[in-house]
Amino acid sequence: MKHRLLAAAAAFAFSLPVAAQEASPPLSPGEIAAAAPASDWVEIPASDLLVMDLAPAGKAKKKAPPRRVVIQLMPAPFSQGWIGNIRKLAAAHWWDGASINRVQDNYVVQWGDATEKKPLPGGVAVVPEADYTSGLSEWQARNAERDAKRQSRQTSEIPLQRVEPDPYPDWHSRDAYTQWVDFYSGWPVATSGYGLDQVWWPVHCYGMLGVGRNLSPDTGNGAELYTVIGHAPRHLDRNIAVVGRVIAGIEHLSSLPRGTGALGFYEKAEERVPIKSIRLATDLPAPSQPKFEYLSTESESFTKYADARANRRDPFFITPAGGADVCNIPVPVRAVSK
Amino acid sequence: MKHRLLAAAAAFAFSLPVAAQEASPPLSPGEIAAAAPASDWVEIPASDLLVMDLAPAGKAKKKAPPRRVVIQLMPAPFSQGWIGNIRKLAAAHWWDGASINRVQDNYVVQWGDATEKKPLPGGVAVVPEADYTSGLSEWQARNAERDAKRQSRQTSEIPLQRVEPDPYPDWHSRDAYTQWVDFYSGWPVATSGYGLDQVWWPVHCYGMLGVGRNLSPDTGNGAELYTVIGHAPRHLDRNIAVVGRVIAGIEHLSSLPRGTGALGFYEKAEERVPIKSIRLATDLPAPSQPKFEYLSTESESFTKYADARANRRDPFFITPAGGADVCNIPVPVRAVSK
Repeated sequence: MKHRLLAAAAAFAFSLPVAAQEASPPLSPGEIAAAAPASDWVEIPASDLLVMDLAPAGKAKKKAPPRRVVIQLMPAPFSQGWIGNIRKLAAAHWWDGASINRVQDNYVVQWGDATEKKPLPGGVAVVPEADYTSGLSEWQARNAERDAKRQSRQTSEIPLQRVEPDPYPDWHSRDAYTQWVDFYSGWPVATSGYGLDQVWWPVHCYGMLGVGRNLSPDTGNGAELYTVIGHAPRHLDRNIAVVGRVIAGIEHLSSLPRGTGALGFYEKAEERVPIKSIRLATDLPAPSQPKFEYLSTESESFTKYADARANRRDPFFITPAGGADVCNIPVPVRAVSK
Repeated sequence: MKHRLLAAAAAFAFSLPVAAQEASPPLSPGEIAAAAPASDWVEIPASDLLVMDLAPAGKAKKKAPPRRVVIQLMPAPFSQGWIGNIRKLAAAHWWDGASINRVQDNYVVQWGDATEKKPLPGGVAVVPEADYTSGLSEWQARNAERDAKRQSRQTSEIPLQRVEPDPYPDWHSRDAYTQWVDFYSGWPVATSGYGLDQVWWPVHCYGMLGVGRNLSPDTGNGAELYTVIGHAPRHLDRNIAVVGRVIAGIEHLSSLPRGTGALGFYEKAEERVPIKSIRLATDLPAPSQPKFEYLSTESESFTKYADARANRRDPFFITPAGGADVCNIPVPVRAVSK
C-alpha cells in the first residue's frame, strides 16, 4: 500500500522510448485510461451538468478555497422524470440557501430544505415507482449498437464474471444482487427478467446521486438528494431513483463531519453546511462552465481498462483477482482543460 | 432516503405489546441484531483490541473531544505473523508521535512513520507471502463446528448467492472475486481451490485494516497500516495482509481532509494528523479499557440478520434484492457498557 514506488514506476514507463516500453511492466487501469485515444472519450453535454457550490469552510471564509461539486445527470432512458424535476428546481434557484443536513458514515451525504416547508416551483411532477426501472425501447437500440461495436473488434463482454480458475463458468455475471450487470453509455447498470419483461436500472455505486423519499408510494420529487460515500448500498437499487453521479469535488462531501443524530442527521442547525447555489452548467456564464468527458464504455480502451481492474497485472500486484464487481470498475471521467 | 419516518416506525414496533407486534412490519437488519439474545453476542478479548488516540482536532485543542479509534485484530489462523509484529510495535509504543500521512478518497487512510527512518523494535519478523492465505487445519475444525450448529437448526448457508427469481441457481456464491465467500468467527472471508489446495483469506471491506508494503517480495512489517474508507477494494485481497478492522471511531479517519498529493498523500508536514498513542487494550489501565462484542456469525440471529440485509422487508423497501455482497453484510459490533 506504500504506492510511492508504483507511481515512480508508472512515470518511468511513460518516459521510455518505444522499443524499451515493450519490456516494461503491464499498465495499471489508470494508465490504460490515460493512454486511450481522444476518440474514445465522450464529452458530457453542459446541459447534463449540475454545479453545486457550498459555502466556504472554516472561519476565514474569504480566504477559504471554493467548495465546488460537479454532478453528471443520467442519460435517457433512466430516471428522466426525476431529472426533469431537478432541472426545474435548479432553474428556479430552489436550493440556494438550502443545506447539507445528513452525513452518515459508510452510507450517504444528503441535502435539501431542512425546514421541509419551502414551496416547490410549478411543474414539479409526481414520478411513478415503475420508473425505478426501464424497459426495452431506447435501451435495446443502443445495446445493439454497443454489441455491434464489441463484436467488430472481437472482444467479449466486460469481465464482470470470474473466468479463471473457476471450474463452474456460467454465462451470467457473478453479481450478488441480480442476473447481469453491465455498462451503458458510461454508466453501470443492472438487469433482470426475460423477453418483454426484461428491465434495466442504474445501480448505487460510490458517488452516485439518488432522490430521497418518504415511505412508498412516495417516490421523492428530486428536491431532497443524496450521494453515496461508502460501500455500494445496492439494496437501495430499484427502491430509490438514481439520477446521476458526482464527477468532481466529492471530497467536499465525503470528508464532512459525520452527523451524531439518528441516521447521521446533524443535531444542531449550525452544523449544517449551507448551499450557496445549485445551477445547471448551461445557466452559468460560459467562461465558468465546467467541461468533462468520460471514457466510452463501448470503446476498446474501456474493455482493456475493465479487464485490468479485474486482473491487476501492474507491478504492485502478485495475485490478480480474476473478476471485479461492477462498482469496483469506476468509469473514468476527467476535466477537459479549456 | 428520508429515513426519519422509518426510525419512528422502528421505535413504535418495539413499544407494542406482543399480540400487536405480530401484525407489525418485518424488522430491519439492525432491529434483528438489537433483538438478538445475549448468548448470541461474543465478547472480544481485550488482548485483540488496539486503541489509537489521535491528537485532538482544531485549534482549541484542550476543549476538543478526544479522537479515539478502536481496532479489533483478526483471530487465528489469519495474518498472525503480521499481528505478532503489531503487538510488539504497540508494546514498544512505536507509533507514539507517528502520523496519518495519506487520505485517498474512496480508498484508504494510511498511517506510520512519515520519515521512514525510525528503527523498529527487536523481534519484528519478516512474514512470507504464503501467509496472505490460510490452509486447512484450524479453519477446518472451526468450520465443522459452525456447520454443525447451522445444521442443528436446519438453516442453510448465509444468503450470499441470489436465490429467487434467478432461474440459474448454482451452489457457489455470486461473488465477483472468488468461488465462495462466507463468515468465520465474526469475519468475512473468501476461499478458492479444492481439496488440500483449498485456501481461505480475509477480505477488504469498508473499515478493514491492512498492512502497507513496498513491491513484492516485501510483505510489510506492520508498522505502516491503512484502513479502507470506500467501496471494498477487493483487488487487494491476497495481495496485502488484512489484519483487523476498525470497530469504533472510524469517523475520525474517514472524515479527514483528503490529501492533495499523488495517491492522497498529504503534501505538507503540517497536514499530517499526529498520533498520540497506539496501545493494546491490555496495556491500558483497567477502567479505560474498552469492551466490545460482536454478533456471532454462527448464530441463528446472524443468519436472520444476513437474510434481512439481502432481502429488505422493512417498511421503507419495496423491492428486496434477493442477495447481498459479502461487504454489504457488515458484522454487527457494539460497545459493552460497564
